[in-house]
Amino acid sequence: MLSILIFAAVQAASATPLATPAASDALPADWVAIPDDQILVMTLAGGGTVVMRLAAAQTPRHVANIRKLAKAKWWDTGGSVYRVQDNYVAQWGDVTEKKPLPTDVDANPPAEYEWQGAAPVAKLTRRDPYAEWGGYTRDGWPLAGSGTVQWLPHCYGMVGVARDLAPSTGSGGDLYAVIGHGPRALDRNIAVVGRVVEGIERLSALPRGTGDLGFYKAPAETPVAIVSVRLASDLPAAERPHFQYRATDNARFAAWITARENRQPPFFVVPAGGADICNALPPVRRAPAASGAISGAAR
Amino acid sequence: MLSILIFAAVQAASATPLATPAASDALPADWVAIPDDQILVMTLAGGGTVVMRLAAAQTPRHVANIRKLAKAKWWDTGGSVYRVQDNYVAQWGDVTEKKPLPTDVDANPPAEYEWQGAAPVAKLTRRDPYAEWGGYTRDGWPLAGSGTVQWLPHCYGMVGVARDLAPSTGSGGDLYAVIGHGPRALDRNIAVVGRVVEGIERLSALPRGTGDLGFYKAPAETPVAIVSVRLASDLPAAERPHFQYRATDNARFAAWITARENRQPPFFVVPAGGADICNALPPVRRAPAASGAISGAAR
Repeated sequence: MLSILIFAAVQAASATPLATPAASDALPADWVAIPDDQILVMTLAGGGTVVMRLAAAQTPRHVANIRKLAKAKWWDTGGSVYRVQDNYVAQWGDVTEKKPLPTDVDANPPAEYEWQGAAPVAKLTRRDPYAEWGGYTRDGWPLAGSGTVQWLPHCYGMVGVARDLAPSTGSGGDLYAVIGHGPRALDRNIAVVGRVVEGIERLSALPRGTGDLGFYKAPAETPVAIVSVRLASDLPAAERPHFQYRATDNARFAAWITARENRQPPFFVVPAGGADICNALPPVRRAPAASGAISGAAR
Repeated sequence: MLSILIFAAVQAASATPLATPAASDALPADWVAIPDDQILVMTLAGGGTVVMRLAAAQTPRHVANIRKLAKAKWWDTGGSVYRVQDNYVAQWGDVTEKKPLPTDVDANPPAEYEWQGAAPVAKLTRRDPYAEWGGYTRDGWPLAGSGTVQWLPHCYGMVGVARDLAPSTGSGGDLYAVIGHGPRALDRNIAVVGRVVEGIERLSALPRGTGDLGFYKAPAETPVAIVSVRLASDLPAAERPHFQYRATDNARFAAWITARENRQPPFFVVPAGGADICNALPPVRRAPAASGAISGAAR
């Protein structure tokens, strides 16, 4: 019986079409391919991979650095996940803080924390506690905005650039992913450069570090070695993972928002009438094998 | 250098006195003992413990069941953590769904999901996306409310009662703790009976289940056995953990809210001007050893 509950509960809590009425189901054409050079694949010791989408349009200078670091295989030697703080972040890069950056990497890019943007193509109903609105870009990024500026919110699975005190903005050599309740106070204070689209559990289920701020404490705790970090576009074609975002500029997505804000019976008795952006992240998925992608299911 | 960043960032993101100006620091008298019969200690195989505070005032009938189940040692035989779904919940109890309840346990208590309550003693500045306001009880519980009703919100670490479809409300034999971004759509639809006050990482860092909805899938995955679940008041005095909540009906706590809503330099450049209740959970701590508590530090 409880499994019925759980099924109903999670169906309603998930972003799968099963959870929502037909009006909110995506049409095949709503799913759009994400360019291979926006997909970053990090392989950890033990074989697990964490796949990220890079926010190339929102944070071009930081993403340019990350692409150069991946091409230089900078993380492959000595790179590790060295900090896991419960309900906050998992952070990786160069724990020694001494490894030289490739000469073509900008050690301190401009602060790509927020930008003057066009109105979002879709918005949530209620005000965001950290902004005036929460909404979406057409191409599947969550947004928050106030006045004339907008930014990428610190939601579960979003990836940010570790930095020193201002004016440091961080090179991109050290990155973190949110593994707890969205620490939205970091919005507009750090460059958010992407989102984990597959394998977040490889980071969120890691043992928490017992050192200050969740750093792994030697000798009992050891960082998780990074085997490699590659852009999908630099992988052999047969090994490239392909992902798609769900376009947000259509009536199906508007219905999806309404369904997220008002969960339905039989499990839900009282609909909320609203949601926060971190509980309504736009769907991203592996490209179905039929589209030619090498999906996990197809292999 | 990055450790400076991280230090500043987490200081600002944490609820420790160091994170906030002196005006928001608690006075010794602001820390109030939590009654031993509101503290539930779950010991997992391997020795880790998860300590919860029970919401006895808000959900008396469900908490009465949980106390009876603990006194009957119901979870000690066959109990386990059998479901861990990423960014959602870790759930424990009787995975067989067949174990009889003690005869004095009410299998289906009234739905203690919300109640008519007095105004909260403290409130956040901005509207909550799932309610009209987010705030606090005097004795350290987070609240959300709309109109004349209020409820305990589904924030990270909060504990709820698994239930079947309505009119089932769940006995309390199967419980879950939130281990991801607060799934607030569950508010007002499930009984929230407590909050993990120590050891949430023993649940949040468990391997995710690969079965549907995060259930552990045999034979490769096995539930984590529950060794025992006890009320602190039923433990020998020398073994009782003692906890305190921070009283919210004073100027120091009002300043604490302001500090949570407006993080300060040197790390934070742009303060948010607001926060959501799940990022501003009221502080609870182990009683300092000086007060007679057996704290981890003192042992």
